[in-house]
Amino acid sequence: MHITQKGLVEMNRIERLNLINSLSGIKPANLIGTINEDGTENLAIFSSVVHLGSNPALFGFVLRPRGEVRRHTHENILSTDVYTINFVHTSFIKQAHFTSIKAKSNESEFVLSELTPEYIEHFQAPFVQESTVKLGMRFVEEIPIKTNGTSLIIGQVEHILIPDHIILDGGHIDLEALEIAGISGLNTYYSLNKIAHLPYVREDSKITDLS
Amino acid sequence: MHITQKGLVEMNRIERLNLINSLSGIKPANLIGTINEDGTENLAIFSSVVHLGSNPALFGFVLRPRGEVRRHTHENILSTDVYTINFVHTSFIKQAHFTSIKAKSNESEFVLSELTPEYIEHFQAPFVQESTVKLGMRFVEEIPIKTNGTSLIIGQVEHILIPDHIILDGGHIDLEALEIAGISGLNTYYSLNKIAHLPYVREDSKITDLS
Repeated sequence: MHITQKGLVEMNRIERLNLINSLSGIKPANLIGTINEDGTENLAIFSSVVHLGSNPALFGFVLRPRGEVRRHTHENILSTDVYTINFVHTSFIKQAHFTSIKAKSNESEFVLSELTPEYIEHFQAPFVQESTVKLGMRFVEEIPIKTNGTSLIIGQVEHILIPDHIILDGGHIDLEALEIAGISGLNTYYSLNKIAHLPYVREDSKITDLS
Repeated sequence: MHITQKGLVEMNRIERLNLINSLSGIKPANLIGTINEDGTENLAIFSSVVHLGSNPALFGFVLRPRGEVRRHTHENILSTDVYTINFVHTSFIKQAHFTSIKAKSNESEFVLSELTPEYIEHFQAPFVQESTVKLGMRFVEEIPIKTNGTSLIIGQVEHILIPDHIILDGGHIDLEALEIAGISGLNTYYSLNKIAHLPYVREDSKITDLS
């Protein structure tokens, strides 16, 4: 089957939305936690966290122009400068997914989704207690993507909260052992099975070295 | 375990690289295919493809500042305006991973990795025959990320090549049935198991609606 640009434009809106979202493949499931200046906590699910660099440790995520939930996340990051990125485990995908509800500005998605806020000293944004891998992020830069009004929010890692036994030799993490969830499209959830850990490919490597 | 920014700076370089890369969670495994003006094909593995919008259908990916492989991809996209994004299946993760080799400028990673280039009419960039889900992309914009010298390459979907039986009701795709691979860090590969397809959360939804 060959779908052209013209075919995409003519497609039903919801079908196109789901198809194009699915075509970005498997994505990480993360809850982003923030707080506003009145102390109202916000929690929202995102699947667009991307690695930008390791030194300094930088991550980006894409913020859509529309939607109440995402607007709260945006406003809170701009006003407090901090946010948390919490891994979603397969054990709480329903609660995580429920944070996509359009909450009122004085309502917390932590309460609505039955997830537990957790704090560390000297860091304003709430973490998710149910998550075992969580990052405390400091806002660095917002890059507007003029083509469609989205933007890339860039932050630097200030805190990593992680069980120490799960960091493997060389700094790797086993996402299967941690029961981490992945997302396809907007609402399909996957569990992960580790199938291979391949060596770094050198200039003189041969493909048979990987076997 | 609590790793602070100071702890990260003091960490061994390779361990930090692997840890921070792992902390972006599960990522899509994609091969990006390009061609230069002399007709030399290039193929490189990327795990940073991100969805930016559905109408127009836009995807971004992150290009690191260093590395021969990535430089060829970059130069070819700028000179021909087109590239392909091909899903990696669990059946050919070794070949896909091997495209990270530093090839000479007149060598094709298709040949080195034993993958097969495939073309459609009126589109210059090579697809990967072994992949069953592939996108023909037109370059739209490069957004420099000044903080660390990376950039976000944005492209619009012009062609979707996909087996028609795999698009489910409503435009969704089953990544498990297609045996799509995910990546953690730089070199750990995962297979995917579909565990839930949750409904859209409305303003008046209750968390029990998801059960």
